[in-house]
This record gives sequence, structure tokens and C-alpha cells, in this order.
Amino acid sequence: MKSGAKRPIGIFDSGIGGLTVVKAIRRMLPNENLIYFGDTARVPYGTKSASTVTRFSIENTAFLLKQGVKMAVIACNTSSSLSIDTLRGRFGLPIVGMIEPGARGALSATRNGRIGVIATPSTIKSGAYVKYLKCLDKNIKVFSASCPLFVPLVEEGWLDGKIVSDIAKRYLGPLRSKKIDTLILGCTHYPMLKGVIRAVMGRSVVLVDSGEEAAVTIKRILESSGSINNERSKTEPKFYVSDDPEKFSEVGRRFLGGRLKHVKRIRDGVYA
Amino acid sequence: MKSGAKRPIGIFDSGIGGLTVVKAIRRMLPNENLIYFGDTARVPYGTKSASTVTRFSIENTAFLLKQGVKMAVIACNTSSSLSIDTLRGRFGLPIVGMIEPGARGALSATRNGRIGVIATPSTIKSGAYVKYLKCLDKNIKVFSASCPLFVPLVEEGWLDGKIVSDIAKRYLGPLRSKKIDTLILGCTHYPMLKGVIRAVMGRSVVLVDSGEEAAVTIKRILESSGSINNERSKTEPKFYVSDDPEKFSEVGRRFLGGRLKHVKRIRDGVYA
Repeated sequence: MKSGAKRPIGIFDSGIGGLTVVKAIRRMLPNENLIYFGDTARVPYGTKSASTVTRFSIENTAFLLKQGVKMAVIACNTSSSLSIDTLRGRFGLPIVGMIEPGARGALSATRNGRIGVIATPSTIKSGAYVKYLKCLDKNIKVFSASCPLFVPLVEEGWLDGKIVSDIAKRYLGPLRSKKIDTLILGCTHYPMLKGVIRAVMGRSVVLVDSGEEAAVTIKRILESSGSINNERSKTEPKFYVSDDPEKFSEVGRRFLGGRLKHVKRIRDGVYA
Repeated sequence: MKSGAKRPIGIFDSGIGGLTVVKAIRRMLPNENLIYFGDTARVPYGTKSASTVTRFSIENTAFLLKQGVKMAVIACNTSSSLSIDTLRGRFGLPIVGMIEPGARGALSATRNGRIGVIATPSTIKSGAYVKYLKCLDKNIKVFSASCPLFVPLVEEGWLDGKIVSDIAKRYLGPLRSKKIDTLILGCTHYPMLKGVIRAVMGRSVVLVDSGEEAAVTIKRILESSGSINNERSKTEPKFYVSDDPEKFSEVGRRFLGGRLKHVKRIRDGVYA
């Protein structure tokens, strides 16, 4: 184990969705110390432009770096698809995004080579998933759909019921006719809607959670560089947000299934 | 006419919703030069905390002031309800918000003294409408409902159809049983959903558009101070946004019913 292995893993997201990734990392790597930043003052990212999302992402990564993290995880598909190259070029530490792990997970799950991707408008517009899937296997067929209302639905706490199901049918309808056997949940909010999405798509379609796949990648990178933390840690994750911590703590409880200790507010955009 | 009367009126909103107010002002005051700022990089405000919304609002007003405006209009109900006192205390120019005009409009419309208010979660939580209505008439009965998904629906361009109608029924259902005869549309996005709201509430309920009421107030203030622009102006409104202008121009066209010339991007939060 390297001397720096005890340093925390830094994770950022536009808001609360990235907590599904925190959950996956904690399950996979229970000894790691985690620092999370949710940019709740400027959420959402998924409907904003590449240049704006990249500016925010640079600021978020700079904040994590200041906390002495050994790795940065972009727990936001929009930011991963629009900004990861810029961040990797700019910061000298391993950076894990959601797109590559999600795409790899889907490729190992598909049997018929027909993969669906659902994500925010900005992620779909970037074409990041299509590009990466085709790069790994040029014969794969990819079908995409953006679901702009899924994030507000999750933030509102509407996770099931007729209205949610009708919205899901409207967004997913075009994908159902494409005979896909695998669907990438290309936004860290979407695992909260797994029940509805599964009901609409049918049980035969495998749902790939990009956050869970990312946890596998993180473990592999830490192991191969000897940076994994082998010492049993009792530290709770530390959460930072740019808006009032109260709402984050409340909704976060629903995401993580337990109380969030250490939630602190910092000002967005001034830590770079 | 005073010498400063030709100076523009400044208007800001969290994003695109305030364009319904621009439309109302242009109809009421066709000679006025208008400068609009939409904080599209940080939209929405309606789910964010008072301190964050106030910080953004100070920055937005400072930007308008730099453009030499004679008056600032807060074309955002959330910002009006959370920040107007701070802005009035801080900046030495007339500031018009949405709450007072909306409340006055509702009071002159109601016959049975039972008024409904629909708005974003942050506006409802602030209690601003209830406070102001009760202050003008302590016998009035006010019933409020927050409609968190209305803003994303409008931004997504879903303005009618079964899903929108089902969501409206869910939000407005509790108000229907209260026998209100007047409903304040307490968010500048909501006039875009007038058709659906009217269908759910019934034709006997008067819908009060806070933006239209604000235009009346603006005219009154300018007239009483001799600051109204009497010279026929041919200048198109100037729009500034903090994210990519493209999407703003596209959705803005739907709001204003015509092409937006002069849409420029500035960086959010750095103009103060």
C-alpha cells in the first residue's frame, strides 16, 4: 500500500444524483475515505451548454484537489461527456467519468448488439456514449433518447405512479420498438427510477447503472496503482454543497438510505 | 419628460420565464428601451435557498445598473419574494417586483375574497404572497400550492396534452375544493400553461398574470416621476444570458412570438 493510499477519493456532481455513485463506491470499496461536492446552487447541468458545464467542472475539480484527494470521480454523466478531456488535460490526477464504465458494462451485457442510452439532453447531444460504444465495437447498434423531465421528477420525489409511468412511456416508447436488450441509465439520477423504467422496458432488457460500473473501474485503477486503502476506516463521507445543506441532507437520505453526517456549504465558483 | 427618461428599463430573471413580462411591458409601454438579463447558467431559482437566490439577484441587479438603467424589474417571482428588500436597501433606483402587483391584481379581481396562489417551492415557502395579500386586506382567504414541475415542463416545451393536464390536476386539485374565484400565476413561466390551468380550474376562476400586473405598476411609477419615454423608439430589446444564447433564442421565440435580435452571453456572477 502506497503512502498516499489513505487520501480520500473526491467525487463531484451537479447536485444530488451522484449519491447513487457514492453508494456504489462504498459497497465496492468500504475502506475508502470519500469527499463529495454537489453544485446545488447551479444544478442542473443536463440542460446547459458544454462551455458552461466545463467551466463549472473545472471549478469543482479544483475544489476537490484542494482537499488532497488521490482521484477525482465525475459522478455526473453530463459533465463526464462534455468535460472529461479538458479535466484530464488540466489536472494531474486520475479522473474517472461515467461514460467509459457505462459503455463497457453495456457491451458485456448485450447479447444481440443493440444498446439503448437514456440521458440528459446535453449528454445525448454530445454523442459521447455512441462514440465510445462504437469505438469499442464498431458493429454495435446504439439508440438514444433524452429524458429532460426525469431529473426534476427525481428531485421532486416522484419515483412511481401513473404520471411518472406515462412520462417514461413517452420517452422510452421509441426505444421499445428498436429491440434493444440492454439500456444504459446514462444519468446518475435515473437509478432512482429503475422500477418504472423496468416496468416500461420489460424484464428482458438489462439496465446498466453507470455509477455501479464506475465503482468497478475505480477499484481496478486503485488496485493497479497500489493506491487502494487497506486499513479499515471508520470515517463517514464528507459532503459539501453550494446551496443550503438542508434540502440536500433531506433528499440525500432518500438516495443513500441513511442520515448524511458532515454536510457543509461552500460558495460555488470561488474555490478555483 | 426628464433627461434620464430615455435610459432603458432593466429586467432580470433566472432564465427565460421573464420574457412573459417583457411582452407585457412592450405592449403597455411601446417606447421604452429594454435590457434583459437571464441567468441561464444557474437557472432555476425556484428550488434554491433564500441566501443563494439573493446572492444571484444582487449580482444581476449590479449588472443592470452598469448598463445605466433607470429602473430594475425583477421578472422572477422567486427572486421578488426572497430578495426584493435586500435589493431595495442596496441599490438606489426604483425596483419593481412581481409580488405586489400580482397581489393587487388579485384583490381587484376577487368577488368572494378567496384567492389561490401557485408558484415555485421557494416562493410558496417564503409566504410572500400570503403576507402581502393579508396586509392589504386582512379578511382575505389565501390558499397556496407549489408546482415544482411546471417550470421544467415549460422549458421542455410541453404546454398541453394529457401528461401536462394530469400533473396540473394533481397540483391544482387541492385548490379546486377551496372555492377560490381568483388564481395568481405566481411564476413568470406559468402564463405559458394558461390553457391547461384554465381547463383544470374552470372558466369562472380569474387567472392573474403577475407580469401583466407588473407592467401596470411600472407605467404608473414612470409616469408619476416623469421618467416615461415619450419619444418613439425603434430599438429592439437587448438580451443578455449567462449560458449559451442559442437555446435562449430558440425558446424565447416561443415566448415572445418573434425572433430575438441582440442576444449576448456574459459570464454569471462576475459583473458585480
